[in-house]
Amino acid sequence: MAVPPSSYPSRLLPLFLGLFQGALLLFFALFVTYDEPSAQAEDTSSVADQVYSTFPFFQDIQVMLVVGLGLLLTFLPRYGFSALSHNFLLLIFSMQWALVLQGLLHHFHHGQIYLDLHKLLISEFAAVTVLISTGAILGRASPCQLLVMATCEIPIYLASEWVIVTCLGILDVGGTITIHIFSCYFGLGVSKALFRATWQPLHPKETPTTSSDLMSLVGTLILWVFWPSFVAVLCQPGDAQHRAILNTLLAMNASAITTVVASSLLERDGKLSPGHLQNGSLAGGVAIGVVADMALPPVAALALGSLSAAVCVLGFTFLTPLLRRKLTLHDQCGIHNLHGLPGILGAAASVVAVLVAPKDTSGSQPSQLFPAGGNASEVVEGQWGGRGVGGQALCQAGGLAVALGASLLAGLLTGAALRLPCLAQPPERLCFDDSLYFKVQDQAESPGPDSSAEEGALALKEQV
Amino acid sequence: MAVPPSSYPSRLLPLFLGLFQGALLLFFALFVTYDEPSAQAEDTSSVADQVYSTFPFFQDIQVMLVVGLGLLLTFLPRYGFSALSHNFLLLIFSMQWALVLQGLLHHFHHGQIYLDLHKLLISEFAAVTVLISTGAILGRASPCQLLVMATCEIPIYLASEWVIVTCLGILDVGGTITIHIFSCYFGLGVSKALFRATWQPLHPKETPTTSSDLMSLVGTLILWVFWPSFVAVLCQPGDAQHRAILNTLLAMNASAITTVVASSLLERDGKLSPGHLQNGSLAGGVAIGVVADMALPPVAALALGSLSAAVCVLGFTFLTPLLRRKLTLHDQCGIHNLHGLPGILGAAASVVAVLVAPKDTSGSQPSQLFPAGGNASEVVEGQWGGRGVGGQALCQAGGLAVALGASLLAGLLTGAALRLPCLAQPPERLCFDDSLYFKVQDQAESPGPDSSAEEGALALKEQV
Amino acid sequence: MAVPPSSYPSRLLPLFLGLFQGALLLFFALFVTYDEPSAQAEDTSSVADQVYSTFPFFQDIQVMLVVGLGLLLTFLPRYGFSALSHNFLLLIFSMQWALVLQGLLHHFHHGQIYLDLHKLLISEFAAVTVLISTGAILGRASPCQLLVMATCEIPIYLASEWVIVTCLGILDVGGTITIHIFSCYFGLGVSKALFRATWQPLHPKETPTTSSDLMSLVGTLILWVFWPSFVAVLCQPGDAQHRAILNTLLAMNASAITTVVASSLLERDGKLSPGHLQNGSLAGGVAIGVVADMALPPVAALALGSLSAAVCVLGFTFLTPLLRRKLTLHDQCGIHNLHGLPGILGAAASVVAVLVAPKDTSGSQPSQLFPAGGNASEVVEGQWGGRGVGGQALCQAGGLAVALGASLLAGLLTGAALRLPCLAQPPERLCFDDSLYFKVQDQAESPGPDSSAEEGALALKEQV
Repeated sequence: MAVPPSSYPSRLLPLFLGLFQGALLLFFALFVTYDEPSAQAEDTSSVADQVYSTFPFFQDIQVMLVVGLGLLLTFLPRYGFSALSHNFLLLIFSMQWALVLQGLLHHFHHGQIYLDLHKLLISEFAAVTVLISTGAILGRASPCQLLVMATCEIPIYLASEWVIVTCLGILDVGGTITIHIFSCYFGLGVSKALFRATWQPLHPKETPTTSSDLMSLVGTLILWVFWPSFVAVLCQPGDAQHRAILNTLLAMNASAITTVVASSLLERDGKLSPGHLQNGSLAGGVAIGVVADMALPPVAALALGSLSAAVCVLGFTFLTPLLRRKLTLHDQCGIHNLHGLPGILGAAASVVAVLVAPKDTSGSQPSQLFPAGGNASEVVEGQWGGRGVGGQALCQAGGLAVALGASLLAGLLTGAALRLPCLAQPPERLCFDDSLYFKVQDQAESPGPDSSAEEGALALKEQV
Repeated sequence: MAVPPSSYPSRLLPLFLGLFQGALLLFFALFVTYDEPSAQAEDTSSVADQVYSTFPFFQDIQVMLVVGLGLLLTFLPRYGFSALSHNFLLLIFSMQWALVLQGLLHHFHHGQIYLDLHKLLISEFAAVTVLISTGAILGRASPCQLLVMATCEIPIYLASEWVIVTCLGILDVGGTITIHIFSCYFGLGVSKALFRATWQPLHPKETPTTSSDLMSLVGTLILWVFWPSFVAVLCQPGDAQHRAILNTLLAMNASAITTVVASSLLERDGKLSPGHLQNGSLAGGVAIGVVADMALPPVAALALGSLSAAVCVLGFTFLTPLLRRKLTLHDQCGIHNLHGLPGILGAAASVVAVLVAPKDTSGSQPSQLFPAGGNASEVVEGQWGGRGVGGQALCQAGGLAVALGASLLAGLLTGAALRLPCLAQPPERLCFDDSLYFKVQDQAESPGPDSSAEEGALALKEQV
Repeated sequence: MAVPPSSYPSRLLPLFLGLFQGALLLFFALFVTYDEPSAQAEDTSSVADQVYSTFPFFQDIQVMLVVGLGLLLTFLPRYGFSALSHNFLLLIFSMQWALVLQGLLHHFHHGQIYLDLHKLLISEFAAVTVLISTGAILGRASPCQLLVMATCEIPIYLASEWVIVTCLGILDVGGTITIHIFSCYFGLGVSKALFRATWQPLHPKETPTTSSDLMSLVGTLILWVFWPSFVAVLCQPGDAQHRAILNTLLAMNASAITTVVASSLLERDGKLSPGHLQNGSLAGGVAIGVVADMALPPVAALALGSLSAAVCVLGFTFLTPLLRRKLTLHDQCGIHNLHGLPGILGAAASVVAVLVAPKDTSGSQPSQLFPAGGNASEVVEGQWGGRGVGGQALCQAGGLAVALGASLLAGLLTGAALRLPCLAQPPERLCFDDSLYFKVQDQAESPGPDSSAEEGALALKEQV
């Protein structure tokens, strides 16, 4: 499987990206234009209002994904630069790829695709799935492998989202089922198929240092602050959006506190684990997405946030080592604990929420209970009105099942494809190191007179 | 006072936080609901407008407190992870605690508390006091002690704010008196009562390194950028808010430049002190809060910003060593220089501002001079109209006196309570170290005699 | 030229800044007031709308310049604190200086200058030129030299912008020609005249380390995320602003991917250079500024982004070493590759865009092609209507020529002035070191047993 180190990194990377960018230019030249008809249909102030109401949310989400998530992944002390760069590259690649596919599937009118900020936002949501899945194989996969994974994952996500949201009509305004659960099990499938049964001891470069943990925590905090924007951006303006923001804030507050409680109870000496804090604080945001805009009492958001953080910390402590030992399943960032378990909890909560909803709103006025009408404009209101409480609850459960099954299967297949030798998976001993992909000051070579002061001096000193 | 190191960290932490979170769930289940009546009273677009006008400010303030203030506190090189985490935990705890108390005191109608974004924002303001006070004892207090301090400080703050704003009717839109002065002297009181007369030499881990100073400066810059949002969020939309933003910008610009001037004049060799820059640049923001929305000439904001930065740098150079020597008063982050002195300067400025206000606006049209009407909706307009210029000036001075006295007294009492052995205050030699509370790569165990844990450990592994 | 080290840093710095701040106070006291007439002319909700529509963009730009650009400059491992601080100081100084000059030149009515957020924003744009120019001489110039450079550059920029935008009437909503090209060649002129023909070998402290590269990349990502706000803030609300945002997003996406392709093709071993990624990802944002709001097809933005990134990476690989060798031109941050070359590309694109614009809009309805009317309110619509396509294209080219020529000439003169001995240019061996200007943990004094690992190790090396 391993190719000789002299061939790192693969020359396939620029070829692949270059061809993609060329094809994208061609596609844009042929089919994509700006949404000019608005000039006639709507007045200027309406377009301006739309920009003012969407753009700040869009920027918040960009900060989350580019800076927040990127920094969260820098916990590997010698792989920080790669983690940040690859996350950035994958986001852009996946977003553009999703834009093309979504344009062809949903927005192709008279040979033209009209581009607007909302379509970019929807593409960015699709790209999030790739970033999450990457967490399972971070540091052990080459950029080529990650790009091929993104190429496969985006169309599968779009198909799965179409089945779950459009066909089944589930309510999932924050993407708990469609994004978090899907991407988590897709990533785990890829990891399983890619690394198979190769049991690997802890790599010496895998252990975070104080300073890499600090950077990673900064990433967590950025994600934590802007998460409400992610959940609420697609809500109907007004009460539903207001409620989505508040529910997300409550759930994330509860998560952070519960994480501290659970972590210090579970660790032998009562010391908190940085990894728990970095992930558990966000678990509430994952779980709340599916019910954020529903008219539930605030206590439900608090309870869901607490529960999901507890489940996340328990997962890190017991489930991850178990999966690693029994299934030889590698999950580098613990995405199963942050996205999988809390996601399932959220999906279950949405079933309960639908079932216990006030009776008088189930038949005639569903929109009062769920004013957002699910994933923006895509749910047919009548469907849920005609379907009744039990039917909707069943749909939510069905959506979860579809997301789980499809992603796991597709992930396994994709992971098998990633074993192609031309994708240049690095051998174990070269993993987790920036110097494989970037011309950085190499820690192992640098005690010479011209070396970087800091690293060189340290190396020198250790030899003294 | 000290308990044996084997008991660190105290098991009290999860117990305390767990009980709090449980009680919070119960409280929310019984009393808290979303502000549904708006659906009838106001139309959807009005709620949406409210979200669009408040939410961006709210997010800015969250970034300030969670990321900016957190990073500012990471100047202690081995305590960065703890500083960032404890700041985050205290913010959430205090915010929820303030939400409960404020709900009970002010918003309890027919057995229900209607939750909205504005109430969360007000709670966040209350939580700021705890974060500031913590600065006085950073690194030497255990998380349990900090939580107990927060538990005491929030109700005292609410009482003090009620007296100052509602009874005395002072104008203080940016919280200079109610938040900054209160929390500063509360923190100093706690520090005095907690450490008493124990003179401690400089701890070897207390000195910032280049990289911890850099992170701290990034925190300062984030606070600096978003400070106008903090000051202006509670202003009346329109001219008053516009003026508050501009005044804050001018004051903070002046602060930054004056800090450089003062610091390089005061230091023997003309080199700037990083600590001066990290704090002095923000001093103008503290001082301007109390007059930000008043119709003063722009030069007043510039002058106030310059003066407060000068006072802050002078405080660091002369007053802090004096207090340390004469009163054995520890002020780890120099909160007296950043929040105390500039706050008093701002309060004095507000007295002058009220006195020199154009005469024709004092009687009949006070709202033209102070369009914001003080701390949003809480000041009775008629009171100030009937009170006259002299009366209002007296009130501003009275508010300052109340904030100072109440906070110092309450801080001393709270600090005495924090000496309880069960709160597990760490002994001096274990202070300022992340490894006391977190499972981080421990610097003390790393192989080389002086080497950095991070690089050293990795280097060792590679040699093995 | 060099003065003895004992005189570092120069006492001129506090003197210069102190006098400036004093003069500013006087100027504000005499002439500056808040824009009160709005209270009569417009209603409150109009002012509030203006705040809500401008303030979020303004904050985004502040984050870009203070945090993003500051961090981007921290790639010099021992000069990070200085880079961040000097960038911050220069921004504030230049902004206030520009505010004064612009007030005197453009906004002086009846002896008063009415201050509002928009005027601060325009001043901030002027200050950007100084921050960019600094990149050419970063680490080798003293703060005094940088301040004198800012003092000279701002009035020259204002004159150049007046000629280019008001007289020639060019369209340049994102400041590609007026800001980026101007500041780049000004900075190169300064560098040439300041360092003349002194060929200097690579300084040992000039090489980035892994951790300084990481911080710098975080800066790039922050700039990357908020760049659309910078380009779109001065656009007409509505379609033009929407288009400017989308064009910028597309161009920057294309830049990032093309940078990876170009960098890995050009580097011998296929490894990416951190410097390429840090700069190339932003090249599209520089180039797109001049055409961002024009009614071009989206593919044009993609193509321009790709091209400019390719040109940027090529510049780093071939042109910078060439300029260094042949012209002994120092360009520390490679501003010629990030601002100069992509800027020229953008200017050329704007000529083409004007020429190939739909014929029917050239005469009668120019505003349909360029709804923003160039640099906000400053272009006379009739001029471009009467000028025709060819005339406008000529103007764009003329603007480029004026910006290039004026900036280069003025830069050379300014650079010559910076050689004054009283400005305390540091000798080469003391360059690139924070300890020259700041009281940081000095690497040379700290070999004690408990010293920080990093500092201690460095100190050791210097003794060896």
